[in-house]
This record gives sequence, C-alpha cells and structure tokens, in this order.
Amino acid sequence: MDMQISLLDRLFDSGLLIDTGVEGVYARSGTFEDVITAFEGLIDRFAGNTGAEVIRFPPGMNRAHFEGSGYMKNFPQLAGTVHSFCGCELDHQNLIKCMAEGSDWTEGQKASDIVLTPAACYPLYPIVARRGPLASGGALFNIQSYCFRHEPSNDPARMQLFRMREFVRLGRPEDVMAFRGEWMEKGKELMGSLEMPVEVDVANDPFFGRAGRLLKNNQRDQNLKFELLIPINSVANPTACMSFNYHQDHFGSTWGLKTADGETAHTACVGFGLERIALALFHHHGLDPKLWPASVRKALGH
Amino acid sequence: MDMQISLLDRLFDSGLLIDTGVEGVYARSGTFEDVITAFEGLIDRFAGNTGAEVIRFPPGMNRAHFEGSGYMKNFPQLAGTVHSFCGCELDHQNLIKCMAEGSDWTEGQKASDIVLTPAACYPLYPIVARRGPLASGGALFNIQSYCFRHEPSNDPARMQLFRMREFVRLGRPEDVMAFRGEWMEKGKELMGSLEMPVEVDVANDPFFGRAGRLLKNNQRDQNLKFELLIPINSVANPTACMSFNYHQDHFGSTWGLKTADGETAHTACVGFGLERIALALFHHHGLDPKLWPASVRKALGH
Repeated sequence: MDMQISLLDRLFDSGLLIDTGVEGVYARSGTFEDVITAFEGLIDRFAGNTGAEVIRFPPGMNRAHFEGSGYMKNFPQLAGTVHSFCGCELDHQNLIKCMAEGSDWTEGQKASDIVLTPAACYPLYPIVARRGPLASGGALFNIQSYCFRHEPSNDPARMQLFRMREFVRLGRPEDVMAFRGEWMEKGKELMGSLEMPVEVDVANDPFFGRAGRLLKNNQRDQNLKFELLIPINSVANPTACMSFNYHQDHFGSTWGLKTADGETAHTACVGFGLERIALALFHHHGLDPKLWPASVRKALGH
Repeated sequence: MDMQISLLDRLFDSGLLIDTGVEGVYARSGTFEDVITAFEGLIDRFAGNTGAEVIRFPPGMNRAHFEGSGYMKNFPQLAGTVHSFCGCELDHQNLIKCMAEGSDWTEGQKASDIVLTPAACYPLYPIVARRGPLASGGALFNIQSYCFRHEPSNDPARMQLFRMREFVRLGRPEDVMAFRGEWMEKGKELMGSLEMPVEVDVANDPFFGRAGRLLKNNQRDQNLKFELLIPINSVANPTACMSFNYHQDHFGSTWGLKTADGETAHTACVGFGLERIALALFHHHGLDPKLWPASVRKALGH
C-alpha cells in the first residue's frame, strides 16, 4: 500500500500524471503520451506486415451491443453507463436548485444508448458479424480504444480510464489458438527488448459474486486467459500488462460470426494495457525517458 | 437532410467511418486516424515553439469540477454522467432478470464521481488553480481530449463522441484577448493552407430553454465566441470547425485563478474540432487522401 501511494506521488511530483481529484482519473503529460506513442510504434514493428485492418474506437459503444456481450453477467461492478438529462424547463429549474443545495441532482438522469467501452474488442464483434461470413483464412484486426472500469484505486496501474491496444483474430479454432500462442512468445520477446522482467501466468479475473467463482475456475481450468505480468507496485503481485484471451465460440455464437465454411467463428485477442506498460517503463527505468538505457530508447525508436 | 445522409453513407461505404448502430458514435479507420494525426502535426507547426505545456485528458472528468463549471446551467441536455452498478448479489440477480426480459435494467445504476468531458478545457482550470498564482506573463496550455455531447444526429459533423484540441491562455484580460485575436488570423491561414473555404462569424451556442436566450444574446453582444466555419453538409449552414472563446473571468472567479499580481485571471481558448476538420478535408478533397492536391498533402506533411 505504501509503495503504491509512493509511486503515484512520484508520478504526480514529476508531472507525468496530474491529479484530477478522482482516484484512477489522471491527466497525462506530453512526456507520458510520447512514451505511449513510441510503444505503439514498437508494437507495429513487432507485429510486422500482417495485413490487419486498423480500427480506432471512441470511448463509448452501443448499449445494445454491450448488453448482448454478457459483460453485466460477469463484471457488473466495473461497467459505466452514460446518462443524460432529458427533461423540460421545469425539470431543469429543479435540477439547478438541487445542485445549488448540494443535494443529489443525478437521479433524474436517463440512460442513453451509450455505455463506456469495457474492453477494446467488445464493439468489434457485432461490426464484423454484420459484414457477413469471414474470408477463408479468417480475419485480423488492429484496434485501440479508451476503456472504462469502475474501480477507484490509488494504485496508478489500476486506472478507471485507460487505453487498450489489441490484435483480434477470428476464424477456425486452430487458427485463433495458433495466433494466441505466437503472441504469448512475441509478447515476452517485445517486453524483453524493453528490459522488462516478465512472467506469464493464468489469469484470475474479478468475476462478480459467488456465481463468479465458477466462471473463475472455468477460466483457469480451460486456460482461456493468460497474462503477461510485470512488477510495478509490488514484486509479490506483479501487474498484468498484456493478456492473451481465447473466447472459444462465445462472441461467434452471440453475434452469429461465421467462417467461410459456415461454421461458428472462434475468436482470440491479445491486449496491451498501454498506461500500465508506460508505468512499468517509468518504474523500471526511471521517470526521465531521456535517461533510459540506450537499448530501451533504441527499441522505442528514440 | 438528404445531403447529410449521403455524406454519412459515403463515409460508411468507403470504410472511413464504421457504423456502430448509434447515431454519432462511429469507429474510425486507420486512414481517418492518419488524417487527424497529420492535422495535429500541422497545428503544432503553425503554433511554433510557444512553450505551451502539453496535457492530454482522458474522456471523463471529476464530477465535482464539472458541477462547479456551470455547464448544467447552460447545456444540461448535452452532458453525460457515468453511472455504475453498486448493488449486492441479489440486486445483480434482479438486474440479469431485467436484461433477460428486455425491461429497463439501468434504473438501479448510481452516479459515479465521473462525467464525460464536455469540452477539452473544462478539466484544466481547477488543476491550474491548485498550482497557485500564475507566473508573470500568464500561462499557455496545449490540450486534447475526447469529448461527449448527447445530441444523436445523422449529420456526421455532429458526433456524440469526438476529439477536441485546444490552446488555452490564462492571464491578464489584454493578454488573453490578444492571444484570441492572433489565433483568429492564424486559424484562417492554417485552413487556407489546406485549401478550405472559411468564414469567421459570431457563434450561436444552443443554450437550454427560455432563460438560455438571454445567455445567447449576451454571448453575441459581447463577442465572447467566434467560430471558423467550413461548409461540410451544407453551404447555407457551414460547420464550426474551430472556435475562439473569451471567458472573461468566469473560470478565473469559479476556481480562484490568480495572476502574478493577485488579480482574478481571465481565460481564452481556441479549439479545433478534429473529426469535423477531417470531414471537411474528405468533403472538399475527396475520400482518398492519396489523391488530395499536392499543396494540401504537403501542408499535412505527407
């Protein structure tokens, strides 16, 4: 705990992150952003010319697509729905009175059609499904989005608003499994080029409630999700900076995604937690990127 | 109206924007993003070495800072509050039942500490105020943020989620007015280098309700806001692609911002609607940036 506060304080003191008064909601300095831009360039060089279709999502998604994804079954506590004022002038006067009195003015807000994106690939599947069956060989996407998770924390590696970069593979089970396997190796190599100490382990997602324990055991037993871990705040509890996910036919069945042969498509994704990776770099190599080891600066294209 | 639908359809057909099923919420292609990146580079070259502090904000801000800004008085219909599930396991079971039945599951969502950022500079003022009085000469910031406005529309230039780039000047009234005046000229020159037809006019913001008419007249009569307009969907109603705002002492008084002399600081900002500018370029020069006029490509650093 003390270490967490201390890293966050150092980040605030150095100006790399700027306090906004809400835990997990920070402004970023130009230097912080430059590190993320440089790291995204490194991802692309490592990935090579894969022909992946590039898509960038805004930070919110279609609520109907979010509802269809099943996210509220597993992680209701983390989601963020976007609500708006839809009242008349009288309602508005009451709202302003509430605000002036310091009482709760948000009760009249109505849910809009938009939910904050919980993970970069959730908006992708229904879009791809609408295009019809996949080409033979399947499909590959290079996506990025700001994501939201409602988990206020003073651990700077657990932000409420952060960016996730992903490659998403859709196709036959053996193809998407091979893709995931390759990236588990590539991920270690990529982080090695940045002189990061890494380990890869099975993930433990925070599924909600008692029923969630079953889902958690299932995820572990079937090796559905691995994480690449780097110590940031704690050596005992290193932080997941990449994840390697096999969704089986979950999204394929949900959205009617078909392979060229008419089978339900399987999907896998590899995700990069961009802010976490930047924090890992600052933690391991110091708060001034100009003083990072020459090999790390070279890998980042400086 | 037909013209609007047609531009949006052409953008969907070309793949530059991707439909998500919600008006004003679109995914962007790699080509679309490259245009925005190139335009941001052009802004920086035009601005020159101003010593502006670079800050990048996440798409949500501290709700208390949003409340303090007065936004809900003027534009309650446009704001987006972020709500989360805070219930127990039984509440969760009811929520899942609601979703399965297709009834409204969002009523139990509770307002979080976060509101979607309505304009890139709203989170800035309380942060700067906390640092104490401005240096002599004032301060200058280079900021960017995804912003939200709840106004579903099939006009692609009226997105619900879009990025705003801003320069914000804080200091004495004469300094911030001079900054705004310089940018009104620079903005025309910048857009001229992209061969965009522009005009600058006083703005008409959509202040809410009957009381809003007074604010609208005040904004016009005092020349508080100008806009740089470019035809995108309509020649008769060109789209505001930049705005030049003088806030007088509104944010200075609200947040206690002081000049080095202990006076209440005045503020001004110049904003670029990045998606709108990209759309203006696609509308005027065609949907394939490789075929744009050589002078435009050169200005964008291609």
